Amino acid sequence: MTEKNLENLFYDTLKDIYYAERKIAKSLPKMARGAQSPELKAAFEKHLEETEGQIERLQQVFDIIGKRAMGKTCEAIEGILAEGEEILEEYEGAAALDAGLISAAQAVEHYEITRYGTLKRWAEMLELPEAVRLLDQTLQEESKTDLDLTKLANASSNPTALAAE
Amino acid sequence: MTEKNLENLFYDTLKDIYYAERKIAKSLPKMARGAQSPELKAAFEKHLEETEGQIERLQQVFDIIGKRAMGKTCEAIEGILAEGEEILEEYEGAAALDAGLISAAQAVEHYEITRYGTLKRWAEMLELPEAVRLLDQTLQEESKTDLDLTKLANASSNPTALAAE
Repeated sequence: MTEKNLENLFYDTLKDIYYAERKIAKSLPKMARGAQSPELKAAFEKHLEETEGQIERLQQVFDIIGKRAMGKTCEAIEGILAEGEEILEEYEGAAALDAGLISAAQAVEHYEITRYGTLKRWAEMLELPEAVRLLDQTLQEESKTDLDLTKLANASSNPTALAAE
Repeated sequence: MTEKNLENLFYDTLKDIYYAERKIAKSLPKMARGAQSPELKAAFEKHLEETEGQIERLQQVFDIIGKRAMGKTCEAIEGILAEGEEILEEYEGAAALDAGLISAAQAVEHYEITRYGTLKRWAEMLELPEAVRLLDQTLQEESKTDLDLTKLANASSNPTALAAE
C-alpha cells in the first residue's frame, strides 16, 4: 500500500474543483454577454455571484484541513468550457444559441454536482462536519441552478430556436 | 439569423455523445482491470455492456433523423476520462484507489446524464417521439448506474481507504 489514502484524494479533488470554479467564474461573463434572452443573461450573472461565494466556501474547507487553497489543472472543466465557447462561436446570431448555452451550462453544473457530491461523501467519512455543511450548501445551490436552467430551457429559449426553423 | 437551429444543435450534440460513448467503451475495460474490489470490477463490466447498447440506440436516433452515425471530438469527455486515468496511475496499489475510480466514473455518468437530458428535451421539441423513447431509456440507465456507484462507494470501497490511514 502506498501512502495515498482518502485524505489525499479529498485534498486532490478539492484542488480540482477549486481550479474549476475559478475557471467557471472567468467564463460566466462571456456566457452572460453572449446570451440572447434577458432571463438567461440574468441567470448567468446570478450564477457568477454564487460561484464567488462557492470559491470562498472552498477556501474555508482548505482551512479546515489545514492546507493552503490552491488549484490543480482540471482537464474535465477545460473540455466542458471549451465546448461552451464553441457553441458561443458557432451559434452566434443563431436562433438556437440560448438553447445551446443552456446545454453547455448544464454540463458545467453536472460536473460540479458530481464533484461536490463526492467531496461531501468523503468529508462525512473523514468526520469533518463543518466541511460537510459547506460542501452541502454548494451542492444544493448547484442542483437548484441546474433545475432553474431546465425551467428556462422549457419556458423561453427553445421555442425561439424552433420558431426559426 | 443564421441557418443554425435546434435541429443542427440536436445533430451536433448527438455526434458529441456518440464520440463520448465510444471513448467510454474503450476506457471501461481499463477501469475494470484497475479496480480492486470484485464488486467495482463487476459494475464496470456491466456498464460496458450497457454502453454497447447505448451506442446502438444512438445509431437508431441518427437513423430517425436521416443522418449517418458519426462522432465529433468531445473535449469534455477527453478531459473527464483523462482525470480517471490519472487516478488509475497515481493511486495504483493505494487504499483509496476504488474510491477515486468511483468518483471518476460518476463524473462520466453525470456528463452523460446532462447530455441525454438535453437531447431528450430537444427531441420532444422536435417532435421525435421514438427518439425521445430511446434517449430516455439510456437516461434512466445512466441515472441508475450513478446511484449504484454511490451505493458501492458507501458500502464497500471507502472504508478500506479509511482503514489504511
